[in-house]
Amino acid sequence: MASVAFLGLGVMGYPMAGHLRNKGGHDVTVYNRTRAKAEQWVAQHGGSVANTPTEAADGKDFVFSCVGNDDDLRAVTIGAEGAFQSMKTGAIFIDNTTASAEVARELADKAQSGGFSFLDAPVSGGQAGAENGVLTVMVGGEQKAFEQARPVIDAFARMVGLMGPAGSGQLTKMINQICIAGLVQGLAEGIHFGKKAGLDIEKVIEVISKGAAGSWQMENRHKTMNAGKYDFGFAVDWMRKDLGICLAEADRNGAKLPVTALVDQFYKDVQGMGGKRWDTSSLLARLEK
Amino acid sequence: MASVAFLGLGVMGYPMAGHLRNKGGHDVTVYNRTRAKAEQWVAQHGGSVANTPTEAADGKDFVFSCVGNDDDLRAVTIGAEGAFQSMKTGAIFIDNTTASAEVARELADKAQSGGFSFLDAPVSGGQAGAENGVLTVMVGGEQKAFEQARPVIDAFARMVGLMGPAGSGQLTKMINQICIAGLVQGLAEGIHFGKKAGLDIEKVIEVISKGAAGSWQMENRHKTMNAGKYDFGFAVDWMRKDLGICLAEADRNGAKLPVTALVDQFYKDVQGMGGKRWDTSSLLARLEK
Repeated sequence: MASVAFLGLGVMGYPMAGHLRNKGGHDVTVYNRTRAKAEQWVAQHGGSVANTPTEAADGKDFVFSCVGNDDDLRAVTIGAEGAFQSMKTGAIFIDNTTASAEVARELADKAQSGGFSFLDAPVSGGQAGAENGVLTVMVGGEQKAFEQARPVIDAFARMVGLMGPAGSGQLTKMINQICIAGLVQGLAEGIHFGKKAGLDIEKVIEVISKGAAGSWQMENRHKTMNAGKYDFGFAVDWMRKDLGICLAEADRNGAKLPVTALVDQFYKDVQGMGGKRWDTSSLLARLEK
Repeated sequence: MASVAFLGLGVMGYPMAGHLRNKGGHDVTVYNRTRAKAEQWVAQHGGSVANTPTEAADGKDFVFSCVGNDDDLRAVTIGAEGAFQSMKTGAIFIDNTTASAEVARELADKAQSGGFSFLDAPVSGGQAGAENGVLTVMVGGEQKAFEQARPVIDAFARMVGLMGPAGSGQLTKMINQICIAGLVQGLAEGIHFGKKAGLDIEKVIEVISKGAAGSWQMENRHKTMNAGKYDFGFAVDWMRKDLGICLAEADRNGAKLPVTALVDQFYKDVQGMGGKRWDTSSLLARLEK
């Protein structure tokens, strides 16, 4: 049993912290910007509420964060009441936010100077993956810190991989989102075409889904897409945040992402249709409008 | 055992006709525009060579075709020496060409007038699927003819589905190709980005391939894409033919296919790079050029 802090109890962080307590058996201190959520978590799981990230991290072996974006991440780490002020020597900070590779490298440097470790460890698997403790965790950082943190991370993960030095977890998550953008648009165009052609979409997917057109998205989203159901899953607003990170990084590393950039614009259309919180598969709704 | 004719012994038709003979145990007469290929087939498998489609189809229970495009299909069916001139009453013509839904409907009408049946039955699974007899066959046409033809088709198929009336097999194949176009471009952008970011692509795919970004293409093409190997698989020239059919049909049924149209243009770039015969995954080569 380790002493653990968790910063950020959103739709992902709340159940992830829960698994650290229940599956991992760790002593968990939680911090959340809106304190009521942290109190609700403690009422449900036990542990303690901290008033600030500095207070939460104080004396802990492992400090996790899962917040909104680069700015939020900087606030809970190197901000005025940030966790980095109280991290103990040899402790490990594990950030599960999807953020830029740059902020990951910056925080890894600062952590090293402070005598502790930082791992960028964004996740995929969505809210359902967080709730069921079966997330995929893509980690960037030092091998030694990774090996120490891995058994703790395992409490909410099905797959945990060390991808390379600081920032590599974020870069891997970006590849994941880039692949999804093109894939979901292709699937949306296929289903849109099939509906216009008057075909039975269920029958079509049954026949083609095991072959060269098959994908997780086809398997798991065709029914809801065909039914026009988008009030669940991974929200368009978050996908746009992630694609923005991908496109900015591509400007730095020189990768060309024409379809990713186009699909990002399509998601802007979906936001304009009132679909900010719709699942990413709502690209079909845009084609149908 | 049925009497069968097969018209068109290309990379797909040659092994498909072989399975009708060897797995199906049928008596097969073959016709090919370049006669030498038909003679080679008969030397290998037995059966007979016909000089024309009319001669091949004469008296047969089932006549298959697998040719290049709509024009080739019209030539072997309703052309001067076409099979429709000699189809016997109650016989079934099964076309495995990827062609337009229009030509399928036209030929189904003509067949009905002539007292026989026509099924549009394009396949997916590529050359390897044809050679191993594990193709997916998407069929359009009448239920009764489908049921009669199905046990014969099974000789080269793993999955055979009746998708609806005449043309529905072709429309289903179009959905398959539309899904693949966006998907492969997304995958190419993801791998391109990963290489530019200096990541270990094998490790990345290992971690992300079971999740929301996962696909048949990711599983089966990432190694060759990462190695820049494209001299195999489903050729860009054929993909462009198929996407042309999709885009023309979309103009008729009103479906919007922005990424499919864009990826078709990208394949034009690949053709210009000397990649006419490269696998569809060569979209990565275009990004890297």
